[in-house]
Amino acid sequence: MRRTLFEDDHDAFRETARAFVDRTIRPGYERFVEQRHIDREVWLEAGRQGLLGLEVPEEYGGSGAGDYRFNAVFGEELCKVSAGVASCLGIHGDVVAPYLVDLCTEEQKRRWLPRFSSGELTTGIAMTEPSGGSDLAALRSTAVRDGSDWVLNGSKTFITNGYSADLIVVAARTSPEKRSKGITLFAVETGMPGFERGRKLEKVGQPESDTAELFFQDVRLPADNVIGEVDRGFVHMMERLPQERLGAAISNLAHARQILLETIEYVKERKAFGQSIGSFQHNKFTLAELATKVDVTQAFLDQCTLAHTARELTAVDAAKAKYWSADVQNEIIDACVQLHGGYGYMTEYRVARAWMDARVTRIWAGSNEIMKELIGRDLGL
Amino acid sequence: MRRTLFEDDHDAFRETARAFVDRTIRPGYERFVEQRHIDREVWLEAGRQGLLGLEVPEEYGGSGAGDYRFNAVFGEELCKVSAGVASCLGIHGDVVAPYLVDLCTEEQKRRWLPRFSSGELTTGIAMTEPSGGSDLAALRSTAVRDGSDWVLNGSKTFITNGYSADLIVVAARTSPEKRSKGITLFAVETGMPGFERGRKLEKVGQPESDTAELFFQDVRLPADNVIGEVDRGFVHMMERLPQERLGAAISNLAHARQILLETIEYVKERKAFGQSIGSFQHNKFTLAELATKVDVTQAFLDQCTLAHTARELTAVDAAKAKYWSADVQNEIIDACVQLHGGYGYMTEYRVARAWMDARVTRIWAGSNEIMKELIGRDLGL
Amino acid sequence: MRRTLFEDDHDAFRETARAFVDRTIRPGYERFVEQRHIDREVWLEAGRQGLLGLEVPEEYGGSGAGDYRFNAVFGEELCKVSAGVASCLGIHGDVVAPYLVDLCTEEQKRRWLPRFSSGELTTGIAMTEPSGGSDLAALRSTAVRDGSDWVLNGSKTFITNGYSADLIVVAARTSPEKRSKGITLFAVETGMPGFERGRKLEKVGQPESDTAELFFQDVRLPADNVIGEVDRGFVHMMERLPQERLGAAISNLAHARQILLETIEYVKERKAFGQSIGSFQHNKFTLAELATKVDVTQAFLDQCTLAHTARELTAVDAAKAKYWSADVQNEIIDACVQLHGGYGYMTEYRVARAWMDARVTRIWAGSNEIMKELIGRDLGL
Amino acid sequence: MRRTLFEDDHDAFRETARAFVDRTIRPGYERFVEQRHIDREVWLEAGRQGLLGLEVPEEYGGSGAGDYRFNAVFGEELCKVSAGVASCLGIHGDVVAPYLVDLCTEEQKRRWLPRFSSGELTTGIAMTEPSGGSDLAALRSTAVRDGSDWVLNGSKTFITNGYSADLIVVAARTSPEKRSKGITLFAVETGMPGFERGRKLEKVGQPESDTAELFFQDVRLPADNVIGEVDRGFVHMMERLPQERLGAAISNLAHARQILLETIEYVKERKAFGQSIGSFQHNKFTLAELATKVDVTQAFLDQCTLAHTARELTAVDAAKAKYWSADVQNEIIDACVQLHGGYGYMTEYRVARAWMDARVTRIWAGSNEIMKELIGRDLGL
Repeated sequence: MRRTLFEDDHDAFRETARAFVDRTIRPGYERFVEQRHIDREVWLEAGRQGLLGLEVPEEYGGSGAGDYRFNAVFGEELCKVSAGVASCLGIHGDVVAPYLVDLCTEEQKRRWLPRFSSGELTTGIAMTEPSGGSDLAALRSTAVRDGSDWVLNGSKTFITNGYSADLIVVAARTSPEKRSKGITLFAVETGMPGFERGRKLEKVGQPESDTAELFFQDVRLPADNVIGEVDRGFVHMMERLPQERLGAAISNLAHARQILLETIEYVKERKAFGQSIGSFQHNKFTLAELATKVDVTQAFLDQCTLAHTARELTAVDAAKAKYWSADVQNEIIDACVQLHGGYGYMTEYRVARAWMDARVTRIWAGSNEIMKELIGRDLGL
Repeated sequence: MRRTLFEDDHDAFRETARAFVDRTIRPGYERFVEQRHIDREVWLEAGRQGLLGLEVPEEYGGSGAGDYRFNAVFGEELCKVSAGVASCLGIHGDVVAPYLVDLCTEEQKRRWLPRFSSGELTTGIAMTEPSGGSDLAALRSTAVRDGSDWVLNGSKTFITNGYSADLIVVAARTSPEKRSKGITLFAVETGMPGFERGRKLEKVGQPESDTAELFFQDVRLPADNVIGEVDRGFVHMMERLPQERLGAAISNLAHARQILLETIEYVKERKAFGQSIGSFQHNKFTLAELATKVDVTQAFLDQCTLAHTARELTAVDAAKAKYWSADVQNEIIDACVQLHGGYGYMTEYRVARAWMDARVTRIWAGSNEIMKELIGRDLGL
Repeated sequence: MRRTLFEDDHDAFRETARAFVDRTIRPGYERFVEQRHIDREVWLEAGRQGLLGLEVPEEYGGSGAGDYRFNAVFGEELCKVSAGVASCLGIHGDVVAPYLVDLCTEEQKRRWLPRFSSGELTTGIAMTEPSGGSDLAALRSTAVRDGSDWVLNGSKTFITNGYSADLIVVAARTSPEKRSKGITLFAVETGMPGFERGRKLEKVGQPESDTAELFFQDVRLPADNVIGEVDRGFVHMMERLPQERLGAAISNLAHARQILLETIEYVKERKAFGQSIGSFQHNKFTLAELATKVDVTQAFLDQCTLAHTARELTAVDAAKAKYWSADVQNEIIDACVQLHGGYGYMTEYRVARAWMDARVTRIWAGSNEIMKELIGRDLGL
Repeated sequence: MRRTLFEDDHDAFRETARAFVDRTIRPGYERFVEQRHIDREVWLEAGRQGLLGLEVPEEYGGSGAGDYRFNAVFGEELCKVSAGVASCLGIHGDVVAPYLVDLCTEEQKRRWLPRFSSGELTTGIAMTEPSGGSDLAALRSTAVRDGSDWVLNGSKTFITNGYSADLIVVAARTSPEKRSKGITLFAVETGMPGFERGRKLEKVGQPESDTAELFFQDVRLPADNVIGEVDRGFVHMMERLPQERLGAAISNLAHARQILLETIEYVKERKAFGQSIGSFQHNKFTLAELATKVDVTQAFLDQCTLAHTARELTAVDAAKAKYWSADVQNEIIDACVQLHGGYGYMTEYRVARAWMDARVTRIWAGSNEIMKELIGRDLGL
């Protein structure tokens, strides 16, 4: 099914993105996996190519695209080669960017956005806590006012770019009694006393992205490091989660589609019992189902992307996109493993790694269960 | 998710369609079920409202819309009330119409299309045979030339409108040795000697639509009753099956969506263990999944509808739409039955009838297995 | 997989049961469907063959088998021919029997059990109410003491044998404030003033079994019609539900197995595209999966049956057997419909009727959702 | 559900097995993972405890149990702690043992079995080839007679214990033109010239078991290294595959059961939104379903185990047990990952490793697709 959401500009941009991926990600991938983080040079080169500041106005060094379809294209191209790199760069350019661009003061923007766009300042965002999982409103990290400063205590976990990011947006409780109405966002920067990072977490997949626990012990934050309004952090997050979830969904499907395409090639080549294994009816039907799932899901995601480009994407549609695409991705790649037989279990095969990479998407960015809770509520249940 | 394919004209037409359904189908539905066919007056009133000739040029009495979205709207509105009536009218206006409009001679068009559009001439199409199922190329009915006439012998089964239609497009073998290249289409009309119909078949669902076996014994057909080219019938059918399958898909989803909406209302009202049953998390999540399936599938079908409106719909995308929507419809309605508890098993409840109505969609119009075969082949497998 | 739970006696009894089914059920089946209840003669002949009183001691006219495997055999043989007849006779011999045998006084046993065993007194049990569904503890029918009598008011629905049974065990609230601890069981008999039955309910399937609503308006019941202890009815029911659920499970699987066997024969005969349709790999794998499901499920049910024979079957294992077998049955028969193509949608085909018959098993006898609630609680959740 | 297949001897043996696992496997597990093979000491200690020679007659140093239930117990206990160690020891004691015990000459038995039982001689079996996957009859390795010797050429892959085993049973083609009737088994021993091993393969899971490619270049084998009859190797393998598959099935389920039990404990402890996450209805129902799957599957496997103990297990029932249990295992553990949230994606959590360990079971020992092919054929399709 021909996709209809892209125009010439997006197609041209896809070439740029693809060239970047081929030149910078593909050759470094094995090393990133080995060292369990991507090179700083990836960030800098992405910056030079104008790929990090898609959401950042030109006056602050970005490309100011103001059209989410460019983000979508970039995410898709990254995922064809590395879901983990897509996570790292996506957290920065897709997820953190709107916090800085929408919520920061003029002074903050000048301070951070140019280096954000060039890749000199890498970022992450820290919501999840060890005790809390998906229940954001219950977070326990605290920031207490001390003069004009704030003093931050607590810990966060499962933070993408957590080991390496120069600046991390951290959600902390500033009004203990107000649950979701007492949370504020802060920019915590490398080198601040009392800010420690745990080791890189050993994940099932996506080893090329660094993920870490963060610890804050009496971290002193100047008032200039508050992002957005005090006690409005929960709303700030809720308003930006749909974009995060849409971005995740786009990546999920692009990843699955790529593995499916490679698997279709594989089953045409691979022989068993005297014929290509793709010609066995069971395999043929399986692949027909997977191809259908890709097309059906793509139509929905493209519709969501257009809606988001028009600033009309609802939280509930983003939730649908996120959970559905994660399930589809996992089903597709699991079936692709099976079609590879024993090779599908060997990590030198991309499909095996993809299978391990994909498992997290049903869990992160609000687990699929949380998505269903949101959708159910929207139905009035 | 807001649908974006419709324009003002389509919305206005939906009002017309809805009024027709409310005035003509809804009050008669129980009677149609009882008598196991719809009233001729339904056809005539649909004709008066311009609903039957959407594909027919104005010069032959149609409304000549030339925009498949109007067909889609009409199918959706019918399915909200009766899947069976949607079948009857869809076979006529969606499936048979293109055969008559595209393939007929000027003389044939003048002879049939005005009454086709007014509802005076109702139609069906007969491909399937008792022995053959989905294997069209293997059909055994024969038409043998005798002078300028043809003599038709054989039988057909599972023919919607088969008991009542005034004209039936019948596929028969005209060149025995040429398999798919030896099939021709004929118009068989009520009253032709040797043309008999079996009793109305007792189906699991859709009792309001008449379905029958047809028997042809030495039915003499004048050359003027050949539709399209001799020996090209298989191609004629293959070219028109995508529209039939898209139409089926649109109906499948509209039917499921309507039952889902009604079920959501039901679970908000119905209480058990001191709370509305929709508030139980299991039910809430189930409904969230069903609502997501509707939206995801609708996006794909809308994309297909736009492609078909632009004459770009491929056979393989129609196959995807048909099988996927049928599965989704059946899953949704089955879950809705479960949510109704014991009432879901009582035929006075719409959900129970809908469940019986829906089962056939995975089988007809090319079974879902045939669709997967087509999709698999398109993948090069 | 060879089943190991049966001994020679059970095999001999199976012959008796099979002969009864062949002689009495098979030839009458179409008539039972038409009239929407089974003949009284079925009951009387079953009585003569000693098939109704398997649980009834010999001194009260039963065969006093005291071995649930005989019930299992009888249920299996019935289901091979008619799920609906299995329901009617199962409610009587499997479900109601233990209430009468375990809980009745000597006087009551003498009054009811001989005619119960002979088929002169047919029975049902009425727990479910229109407002309550699966929430037994919330039932609203009331029985109020008046002298030594009780006065019953309320209504019940979905009662198998409800239209025809001579005696119905009815659960009613006798202590309003005590929820589950305030329910008592009563025997309500045909002809009692104030006891009315609604019409036979139109169900999706099992038309041969009569199902009805029951209405009680100031029905005066003598103290001799109390079954078991006053206010202990909930416990009486809870203690007997495992047997009801195991019986349901056994029937579910026997029904599915029979349809599967018939379908395997069908796909070997039926040809398409030049080969038997069973030889297509997709169909072959589907049938391999269904056959595996039958064997796996049978092993569990046989284990449960042996446990129950040893009076060790737990409520939670009965719940597992009931929900799992109902799902398996529905999946199997749905797939069998698909394998029949268009014929699977015609009610003259057994598979079509079986599909309609089977849908209720996920709902009744405690819906599958209620079963999961019980199992989840047993896990300590 | 209480299991009924074990007697006191088996329960006592389970204590021995458990003690071995606790003392030898549990403390070494992390090291085995790190070094990607188990210690020789594990083999020797297992030998000292009489755990390796369960199938070996006492005269050759085994415990000569002659009762497969002991094998089942040992496999279950191993899998509770390490699926990979279960693979290593299972290949030796469950899979290779019958080849040596049933097929070897007296001289061969004396030569190998005592050290086999003591753990001094570790073994593997090499059927699969890089080009062939599950199609055993198509294998390409060749052994050509040269005087009284044989000269072996070819390669094998995915061989458990392949890197470390002292003796490997290798299937090779001895009669090129006879397909399945021209295969012979050979014992290839460490140090034979021309026998090389590839590196330890990097698998998705089970890192503690060594898996390798094997290469044979003009490996000269004396006639005394033929196992069984020349050209009968295919039959020898077919006769022993049911035991291999049953053993795999038993391990699959024991592994899943253990992870499920641990997950149930986890969800009782873990809190979110103010309650234990196991108390959310969605999770509760999910766990109820998983627990049911365990019990249902166990009943079937226990029935198979008893049948095998009585030497009655058919190939088709073993195929059912293998594919079904692998699917159940994967479903259960996948759901358990989801219930762990982000922690389920961290390899320090057992559930994450179990998820990676389990994926192979749907592929190896005859892929699930091969199993369905066998089952389908047994149905006459």
